[in-house]
Amino acid sequence: MTVHVDLNADLGESFGRWTLGDDDAMLGLVTSANVACGFHAGDATTLRRTCARAAEAGVVVGAQVGYRDLAGFGRRFLDMDPVELTDDVLYQLGALDGLCRVAGVAVRYLKPHGALYNAVVHHEGQARAVVDAVRAYDSGLPVLGLPGSALLAAAEAAGLRAVPEFFADRGYSASGTLVPRSEPGALLHDPAEVAGRVRRLLADGLVRAVDGTEVAVRAESVCLHGDSPGAVGMAAAVRAGLEAAGIGLRAFA
Amino acid sequence: MTVHVDLNADLGESFGRWTLGDDDAMLGLVTSANVACGFHAGDATTLRRTCARAAEAGVVVGAQVGYRDLAGFGRRFLDMDPVELTDDVLYQLGALDGLCRVAGVAVRYLKPHGALYNAVVHHEGQARAVVDAVRAYDSGLPVLGLPGSALLAAAEAAGLRAVPEFFADRGYSASGTLVPRSEPGALLHDPAEVAGRVRRLLADGLVRAVDGTEVAVRAESVCLHGDSPGAVGMAAAVRAGLEAAGIGLRAFA
Amino acid sequence: MTVHVDLNADLGESFGRWTLGDDDAMLGLVTSANVACGFHAGDATTLRRTCARAAEAGVVVGAQVGYRDLAGFGRRFLDMDPVELTDDVLYQLGALDGLCRVAGVAVRYLKPHGALYNAVVHHEGQARAVVDAVRAYDSGLPVLGLPGSALLAAAEAAGLRAVPEFFADRGYSASGTLVPRSEPGALLHDPAEVAGRVRRLLADGLVRAVDGTEVAVRAESVCLHGDSPGAVGMAAAVRAGLEAAGIGLRAFA
Amino acid sequence: MTVHVDLNADLGESFGRWTLGDDDAMLGLVTSANVACGFHAGDATTLRRTCARAAEAGVVVGAQVGYRDLAGFGRRFLDMDPVELTDDVLYQLGALDGLCRVAGVAVRYLKPHGALYNAVVHHEGQARAVVDAVRAYDSGLPVLGLPGSALLAAAEAAGLRAVPEFFADRGYSASGTLVPRSEPGALLHDPAEVAGRVRRLLADGLVRAVDGTEVAVRAESVCLHGDSPGAVGMAAAVRAGLEAAGIGLRAFA
Repeated sequence: MTVHVDLNADLGESFGRWTLGDDDAMLGLVTSANVACGFHAGDATTLRRTCARAAEAGVVVGAQVGYRDLAGFGRRFLDMDPVELTDDVLYQLGALDGLCRVAGVAVRYLKPHGALYNAVVHHEGQARAVVDAVRAYDSGLPVLGLPGSALLAAAEAAGLRAVPEFFADRGYSASGTLVPRSEPGALLHDPAEVAGRVRRLLADGLVRAVDGTEVAVRAESVCLHGDSPGAVGMAAAVRAGLEAAGIGLRAFA
Repeated sequence: MTVHVDLNADLGESFGRWTLGDDDAMLGLVTSANVACGFHAGDATTLRRTCARAAEAGVVVGAQVGYRDLAGFGRRFLDMDPVELTDDVLYQLGALDGLCRVAGVAVRYLKPHGALYNAVVHHEGQARAVVDAVRAYDSGLPVLGLPGSALLAAAEAAGLRAVPEFFADRGYSASGTLVPRSEPGALLHDPAEVAGRVRRLLADGLVRAVDGTEVAVRAESVCLHGDSPGAVGMAAAVRAGLEAAGIGLRAFA
Repeated sequence: MTVHVDLNADLGESFGRWTLGDDDAMLGLVTSANVACGFHAGDATTLRRTCARAAEAGVVVGAQVGYRDLAGFGRRFLDMDPVELTDDVLYQLGALDGLCRVAGVAVRYLKPHGALYNAVVHHEGQARAVVDAVRAYDSGLPVLGLPGSALLAAAEAAGLRAVPEFFADRGYSASGTLVPRSEPGALLHDPAEVAGRVRRLLADGLVRAVDGTEVAVRAESVCLHGDSPGAVGMAAAVRAGLEAAGIGLRAFA
Repeated sequence: MTVHVDLNADLGESFGRWTLGDDDAMLGLVTSANVACGFHAGDATTLRRTCARAAEAGVVVGAQVGYRDLAGFGRRFLDMDPVELTDDVLYQLGALDGLCRVAGVAVRYLKPHGALYNAVVHHEGQARAVVDAVRAYDSGLPVLGLPGSALLAAAEAAGLRAVPEFFADRGYSASGTLVPRSEPGALLHDPAEVAGRVRRLLADGLVRAVDGTEVAVRAESVCLHGDSPGAVGMAAAVRAGLEAAGIGLRAFA
């Protein structure tokens, strides 16, 4: 029996004249594409092309929904009314699904972006608001998020499939949370080490924290960064490392 | 055999703190709602509520797509690349369709808004761009527009249903075009006269132009204004006038 | 010796096709206009006209700066980096000052809007960020805000003039804070009562709280609401009540 | 007596997470920076930093005003009412001037961006609208534009200084207009040739058109592209070529 894992990355984050990341290269490496939906990034032409290329490459498309904040790239917490957040998520979900439809595919999961992703780790009102949108739109859509988050708890409570993910190149603390970017050990830069961590996770369900502790982490998908310098090289190395270890790549949705 | 006609109006054009028109009242009078899609007007919460109330009232929802220009309310011509226009239309169409879906209905036709509506009377590139979006999304969706427009010609050429409309309270010139708003006779204010014109149109296919000429006009739907002062009163009077004349009201889509 | 007071209200909050409030009427009643700056409301044409009419009416213009959030009307807390907030405030301040300049006047004070106003009551980082902008732009500009707020403390610490204001038609708690809008007594609707409270404040520095306690409040300006139904009537009644009591009206800046 | 020339380039065109061009490198090469004003590009933090660095480098700042169209980067003609265009230009001018002010400098000229630049070559209504803004704001500000344009004619008619510019790396037709980007010879890629053309222009007032004709061109400034690949190398080569020829560099404003 082969062990499989999903690799996901954020794509479609260019906007008009401004480009970000190398979507075409990443689409050759990942199995799931978290495609922006226009609120934090992604004009319609970028999004349509990203969905079409994902479809051609056999990569599953998820809706990467965010706050309506282009100037802040969705990275600033916005204290929205939950009803309005549900509606903004629905709007984004429908828009991306329409662009998938004309590419012959459909949105197959949802993942919050940036500050919304971080907010719904603890913010129960916003977590439920996101889940309410998914349930109303299509209760068959899985929700991708942080293990132990309010989002995944709300998704499960609502009868949705909750999919936890692992951050391949981020340091973990002994409690299983991510090391903040401002602290040492927050980011790993060695592709071999990163690939090794993913193999370890799949084999034993463990990751070594910055203090040396072995921490149990449950994950069905592995998140790779798509827009940092070296993102493509890192993703390629992780994929090669997994394949060399006989681990298959397969979308979770 | 009863003669039937469709009444359409622009709805869902509030935005956040700013309200426009009396959507609830208009939904009791029209048979088709041209609902904004967020680019020229309409936040997600407004749009979702408008779709839900239209569904409750049995009013058919159409996507009223426009240029991405909130500051100009979509009333300023934007010289877009046709490819980008197609994609912007698809994005809007999908977004509104998602909000319809959670209300148990679906977008049933498309009508361009404001400056885009006026542009596609003559601008063949933009007309084809709009039609390309509809055909890619759902070739069963009719397109609502001005009789004789490049838009309706392009829709027919693409195998779509092209639905011409009549402007109940606008003056017509002898050539069958609308009298520009800056000229005398551009707007009619007497509900009885307006209702009479609609009856005449349905009975004989004729409208009396500002210079007295009788002009042939082909129309399957009658457009009422939704956001002017007195819009609700005018719409109610037209509807009552039609019902009194034994004319039935029925959505075209 | 005549006692004087300043009356301020939020103006310039229309946006494109959407109008809000009756700016012309309010400019005949207040002495200071908190004019929006385009980030939460106010297109350039609205803002220019509002500044020009304020200048004609002899009403002092202040910059009502807010979060970059048209969809939320600046009423949702946005967790901005303080450096970016300072820069956004500077951008707004300069823009409005340019529109004042062509009307022959200048921005004479600054007041935060909506969620930013509420945030800087307690959020010291954002309070300092706003003050940093004012100090860098013109250290002679006063800052208008809530008595006891972090904003006014930061303004004083930076050597700026800090101007506390009183909310004429809002209920106060025994601790001197505003009764939340969701609780009974949050809003007063009787113009005579509202005018009486302002007279009491000016005479004795006291306001009767919802529980009957007499609370000391320090204020150099009185805020009137500009966009609620009945706003103009309330403002006119307050003004008339003050004039009848021999209280003069004079801008604080 | 030394011959002098001004080199100008578009800067400050990043937006939030998205960066464009190498502003720091270009500020070491040009004498005038056309800094975006937030409508087609440029968040407040980018703009403030660009103005501050220009001030440090002794580079003069001009306001590069554009249509309110982030999604289109101001490169799509927008058929605005001239009154609204004047107001939008004033808003942008004031905003950038405020960011200059806190850097100890001021906006010293105005240049339209993108589709607005192209529109005001022929569109007299929009040309006058831009000029009206400059005249109202500061009649001492020069306007930079295409030789022979409606913009420069309107500026002169209004008593403003009209400054014509030369495009160093663009091909010219025999009639003195630019070769459209879709035709052969539109872009020059050899820095030595480009520098030679600028020297020729300064010495003789002539440029060799794509068909070999010698065309008279009047220019007080030379525009370099700031955001194309190789932009910095081209700018450095042009500057070095001018200096080698004993031509001094000096801002026109």
